Amino acid sequence: MNPLAQLRQYTNELTALERIMALLQWDQEVTMPARAADDRAEQFAILSGIIHQKLIAPELGELLDRATAAPGLTEIDRALIRNVGRERDRYCKLPESFVREFASLTAQALPAWTESRKRADFSLFAPFLEKIVALCRQKADYLGYESEPYDALLDLHEEGLNTATITGLFAVLAPRLTALLKNRAGRDPVRPVSPPMSRNDQIAFAERVLTIIGYDFTRGRQDPSAHPFSTAISHNDRRVTNRYAPDSLEFVFSAMHEGGHAMYEQGVAPDLANTPLDDGVSLGIHESQSRLWENIIGRSRPFWEFLYPELQKTFAPQFADLGLNDFFRNINAVHPGPIRVEADEVSYNLHVLIRFELEKGLMAGEIAVHDLPGLWNEKYEAYLGVKVASDSDGLLQDIHWSHGSIGYFPTYTVGNLAAAQFWKAYRRFDPDYRQTLSTGKLDRVREWLTTAIYSHGSVYPPEELLLKVTGKKLNSRYFLDYLEKKYGGQAG
Amino acid sequence: MNPLAQLRQYTNELTALERIMALLQWDQEVTMPARAADDRAEQFAILSGIIHQKLIAPELGELLDRATAAPGLTEIDRALIRNVGRERDRYCKLPESFVREFASLTAQALPAWTESRKRADFSLFAPFLEKIVALCRQKADYLGYESEPYDALLDLHEEGLNTATITGLFAVLAPRLTALLKNRAGRDPVRPVSPPMSRNDQIAFAERVLTIIGYDFTRGRQDPSAHPFSTAISHNDRRVTNRYAPDSLEFVFSAMHEGGHAMYEQGVAPDLANTPLDDGVSLGIHESQSRLWENIIGRSRPFWEFLYPELQKTFAPQFADLGLNDFFRNINAVHPGPIRVEADEVSYNLHVLIRFELEKGLMAGEIAVHDLPGLWNEKYEAYLGVKVASDSDGLLQDIHWSHGSIGYFPTYTVGNLAAAQFWKAYRRFDPDYRQTLSTGKLDRVREWLTTAIYSHGSVYPPEELLLKVTGKKLNSRYFLDYLEKKYGGQAG
Repeated sequence: MNPLAQLRQYTNELTALERIMALLQWDQEVTMPARAADDRAEQFAILSGIIHQKLIAPELGELLDRATAAPGLTEIDRALIRNVGRERDRYCKLPESFVREFASLTAQALPAWTESRKRADFSLFAPFLEKIVALCRQKADYLGYESEPYDALLDLHEEGLNTATITGLFAVLAPRLTALLKNRAGRDPVRPVSPPMSRNDQIAFAERVLTIIGYDFTRGRQDPSAHPFSTAISHNDRRVTNRYAPDSLEFVFSAMHEGGHAMYEQGVAPDLANTPLDDGVSLGIHESQSRLWENIIGRSRPFWEFLYPELQKTFAPQFADLGLNDFFRNINAVHPGPIRVEADEVSYNLHVLIRFELEKGLMAGEIAVHDLPGLWNEKYEAYLGVKVASDSDGLLQDIHWSHGSIGYFPTYTVGNLAAAQFWKAYRRFDPDYRQTLSTGKLDRVREWLTTAIYSHGSVYPPEELLLKVTGKKLNSRYFLDYLEKKYGGQAG
Repeated sequence: MNPLAQLRQYTNELTALERIMALLQWDQEVTMPARAADDRAEQFAILSGIIHQKLIAPELGELLDRATAAPGLTEIDRALIRNVGRERDRYCKLPESFVREFASLTAQALPAWTESRKRADFSLFAPFLEKIVALCRQKADYLGYESEPYDALLDLHEEGLNTATITGLFAVLAPRLTALLKNRAGRDPVRPVSPPMSRNDQIAFAERVLTIIGYDFTRGRQDPSAHPFSTAISHNDRRVTNRYAPDSLEFVFSAMHEGGHAMYEQGVAPDLANTPLDDGVSLGIHESQSRLWENIIGRSRPFWEFLYPELQKTFAPQFADLGLNDFFRNINAVHPGPIRVEADEVSYNLHVLIRFELEKGLMAGEIAVHDLPGLWNEKYEAYLGVKVASDSDGLLQDIHWSHGSIGYFPTYTVGNLAAAQFWKAYRRFDPDYRQTLSTGKLDRVREWLTTAIYSHGSVYPPEELLLKVTGKKLNSRYFLDYLEKKYGGQAG
C-alpha cells in the first residue's frame, strides 16, 4: 500500500473510534439508564485511551512524514495530513501524566460545579477552578504560543484565533452593541406561550421545521434530551436532540440551531465520508451554520410569513388570535438578562465579551479566581445593565470551565459574525432572498450553503473558507449591519 | 502492579470494548437510521479488529501465565484466568487469514440467505452454505476435537458440550416427545386475539409484566425492535426489546423470555461488575433462564391465576368474556407446524433435533448441502407430522447458518432441559411454589435464582453450575416429567 492509502486507513479507524465515542455520548444523554453513568465513564476512559494511543503512536508520525513526501498530493490529501498532523501534534505535546491529571481534575470539578451552582455557593467550585486555571496555563506552555498563553487555548478551539483578533473584533462590537441595546431594550413584550402546548405537538412541529429547512431524516433522527445538541455518529447518521417546555417556542429555534449544525455535516461531500475531514471545520464555523438557521433565517420576518400560518394552525389556542406583527416582535424582543443561553441577538455577544475579558485576565495572571464573582457582576451591570442576583445565574451558569474549557466562549462570537458574513454572500447570490424565504424555498439556501461550505467538510481552515466564500477575513461589520438594520430603527 | 491486578485491568478493557460493540448493535437494531448500515458495519469491523488484536497480543499470554503462577488465587481469579484463557486460545488457534475469509464469506452469505428466503429458492443460498460448511470443518480442525469435527463447534457454543452427549439426550427425548405430540396435537384451539390490541397498551403491559417478574428498569430499558433480544451494555445497563402484533400475545411471552435473559445478568454479583465474568456462563444456561420465565412460569396455570384478571382488565374487549380455563388452553395449545420460533413446548425440541441431525451429518461429510431440502422435509414429516410447503418455511427459516453458526441450535435444547432441572431444584426449596406464583410473589423465585445462578455470572462452567444447583448432570428426565405432567393426560 502507498503511504497515503495507509494513512487513510489508519485515520479512518481513528475517526470511527471518535464516532463510536459520540454514540456513547448520545446514548448517555438520550437513552441510557442513569444508574449506568459510572460504567459509561469507564467505557469513555478506555476508548479515549485507545484513541490517544493511536494518535501518539510513532507509526502515525511515520505515516504522516511519508505521506507528506509523497508525489502528486491532492488538496484533500494535504488537508488530511494537515488536520491529522495538527491533532497528533497537540496530543504529543501534552505529557501523559499531564493528560491524566487534567482528566482527573475535571472529573472532580464537574460534580463540584453542579453542587456549587445548586447551592449558589461559588466557594465550593472556586478551588477546582483555581487548579483548572493553573493547569490551563501549564497546557498553554506545553502547546506553545506567540504572544500570550490564552492564544494557545484559543487556537485549540478555533484554528488561527488569537487574543489580538478577538480584542479587535470586540473593540468594534462592544460600543455599537451597547448603543443598540440602549435603543431597544424592553421595547417589545416577552410573552410566555399560553395555554400550554402539548409535548407531542411540539415534537411533531419540530420535526416539520427540520424537514422544511432540509434536514435529512433518512440520515439522522430527532430525540428529546435534557439539553439540545447535535452529533455525528457516522457520515449517514447525524442526529439532533431537542427539549420542550409547554410555554416556550424555544424548541422551534433549537430545532433550527441543531438542524443547522447537523445539515452542515449532512452536506459534507460523499468522497470525504467517514474520513477525518467528514466534519465541520471548526467550532466557530459550525456555530455560524447553527446561528444562520436559528437567527438570521429563523427569526426573520419573511421566514415567518411562510411558516406562521402553519404554527397558528398547529397551536391554534395559543396563536390563532395573535397577528404576525406581534408574533414577530415577541420572538425578537430585546431584554438583557443574566443568562447567556437565553440572550437575544443584541445582548448575546456582550455575554461572550464578559467571559472573554475574564478568561484573558485569568490566563494572564491578572485576575484571581476569588475576584471573579465581583468582576462578573460589575461587568454585567456595565455592559448589559443587569444586576446578577445570585452566582447560580452569574458566573456559575456555564458548564464550560468545569470541563476545563477555557477559550471556548469566543467561538460563539466567531459563529455569530461569520453567519452574518456568509449571509451577506448568500444575498449577493440571491437578491430575492426575502421571497425565497417567504415562499418556503429553503432548499435554495441549503443548496448554496452545501456548495459553498458544507461539502468541503474540514478541507479548508476556517479563515481560508471564510475568505473563499465571502472574499473577506472575519469582520464584525456584517453582523453589526444586520443587527442595526433589524434593531436600530425607532419602535419596530 | 501484581500480575492479577494487571490481568484484571487488561481484561476489563476487553470487556468494555465488547460492551461498546453491544451498544453499536443495540443502536443498529433500535435507533440507527437504516441508511447508516454500511458506516456501522465499518465501525463493527474496526472495533472487533481492536478486540481481536488485544486477545491475541503476546502481552495477554504473558499476563495469563504470570497470573496462573501467582500464589493465593481465589475461585474468582481462577475463573477469570480460565474464561479469558479459553477465549484467547480460540482466537489464537484461528489464523488471521482464516478469520478474514470467514468474515467476508458470512458478510456475503447473509444477504444471499435473505434473498433466497424471500424468493423461496434454496439454490441462491446453497453455494454459500457449501462454503460455510467447508470453512466450519476447517475451523474445527484449527480448534481441535476428540471424536468428531462437530464437537469443536458445539464446545464453541456451549463449553463441554459434544455430539455424544446430545445424541444421548435426544435418544431419550425423541420417542417420548413424539408420543406426547401424538397424544396432544390439535386438541386445544389456537385463537388469534380479536379485536386488535393497541400497540401502546401492549408496550405498557409488557413493561408491567417485566416489573412483576423483577426486571430492574433503573438498570435497563425496553424498546421496540424487529426481533426481540436482550443485551448487556454494562453491569448496570441490561436492555430488552420486544415486538408487537395486534392479534398476538407473543409480546407477553417475549417480555418474559428476554426479561429472563436480562435478569440473569442484572443478578450478577457487584464484585464481578464489568469484568469478563459479568455475564451469563453459556448460551445454554442463558436460555434456561429465559425459558424458565417464558414457559415454565409464564405458561403455568398459577401464574395466570395471578395475572389473568389484569390482562382481562387491560384488554377487556379481547379477554373479558374468555374464562381462565380456555385462556390457559389457548396459550398452551400443541399444534406442530413448520416454524421453530412459533413452536409449542412439546414440539420445540424436535425442531432442534432435526437441525442437530443435519448439522452432524454435514460436519461428518455424510450429508451434502444439495440433499438438505429433501432431508429437511422428510424429517419434518417423520418427527412432527408436518408437510413443509416451501423452503422459506423450511430450511431457510433460521438465520444461524448464514452467520456461520453451526453448532448453535443444540444450546436451545440444553436451555429447555436445564430450565426444568433448575425448576425441580426450586420446587424442593419452595414446595408451595404454586401459591408463590398464584399470589404474584415472583420475587421469591427471582431471589432464589439470583443466589443459586445469577450472582455467579460466569464463575462456574455450565456443567459445574448445574451440578452445584441441582446435584445432577444435565438430564432430560426433568423436562420430560414436566411436559408429561402438563401435556400427558387426557383432554386438559
